[in-house]
Amino acid sequence: MQRLKGMSINEMLNSIARIEERICLNLSDVQKILLTTDGSVTRTLEVLTGRPVIIITKVRTPINADEDLAKELKIKVGEKTNYRVVHLKNTDSDRVLIFARSWTPVMGLNGVIKKDLTSTDMPIGKILAKHKLETRREVTSIGLLEADDMLKEAFKIDSEPMLSRFYNIIYESEILIRINEVFPLSSFR
Amino acid sequence: MQRLKGMSINEMLNSIARIEERICLNLSDVQKILLTTDGSVTRTLEVLTGRPVIIITKVRTPINADEDLAKELKIKVGEKTNYRVVHLKNTDSDRVLIFARSWTPVMGLNGVIKKDLTSTDMPIGKILAKHKLETRREVTSIGLLEADDMLKEAFKIDSEPMLSRFYNIIYESEILIRINEVFPLSSFR
Repeated sequence: MQRLKGMSINEMLNSIARIEERICLNLSDVQKILLTTDGSVTRTLEVLTGRPVIIITKVRTPINADEDLAKELKIKVGEKTNYRVVHLKNTDSDRVLIFARSWTPVMGLNGVIKKDLTSTDMPIGKILAKHKLETRREVTSIGLLEADDMLKEAFKIDSEPMLSRFYNIIYESEILIRINEVFPLSSFR
Repeated sequence: MQRLKGMSINEMLNSIARIEERICLNLSDVQKILLTTDGSVTRTLEVLTGRPVIIITKVRTPINADEDLAKELKIKVGEKTNYRVVHLKNTDSDRVLIFARSWTPVMGLNGVIKKDLTSTDMPIGKILAKHKLETRREVTSIGLLEADDMLKEAFKIDSEPMLSRFYNIIYESEILIRINEVFPLSSFR
């Protein structure tokens, strides 16, 4: 499902069409934008909700890249990577807007950026803006997921199809961070 | 109205609130996203319409930056700039989705990028993706416009409030291109 190259617009449209076929339902415009954008998702959530969005870190742990992850991140097997699981939500609400997992290769990171990326609770879009980093985003896959226990707990749901995408934020020709964002089909309709 | 620094999320939300007050109407989620995104607008239009978006160049002319433009682009007065007016639309339709004006300082541009930016009909988001350019986008203003003759003709309307924003695409700490996008209040609702 995941690929090393960014998807073309046609590949993204095909992925959306396949999802719509499987669930016998059209995705909303906002859902389609959230699955395909190469802009800041935090910014989009703040504009949609009209107020600030923060992240709550649920898991933060260093891991050594196994073969699959090393391939995805274009790093060496065994290289240190920060793995993080976060909830994106408004400051004044318990409702989780988006569930996100991320993998950040530690080598090569500038010290200040590394600190913000791996030890603060600042959304990635705000870290990039703060440091005025010039980057690009490549979506690598868009699909459907079954909710596991972590997702059921996050979104307070029993069972529901989840929309998911993977993308890389690329800085100085290397993957700064790989992100998987997930939200329930019933959100953003 | 235009400023040299990118707007914060609060400033963008305030601009949207002021627009909504003036027109006594809430903007749609998609309109708000189009006015605030730091991602590719062409990509968003392709996802919303489900098919390719192209640009039709209506005006393309070199101009020498006057004092105001030089200040906006952070270049010297008199410096050569490419001014362009384009319509964004689907290949199979005459309907204009977005009307855009852009200003590209010519000095300092890499030859291949310059050629694509100033002489082809490729949308900017596709040029950036083609060359894998790492950039950032700063929205500098969001507001309402009265439709002038060019806008009335483009959108085949008589008189209607228009939503407008200015933003800069920044590459290697300089303004690669300054863009003004406009669409009627009745679009993307």
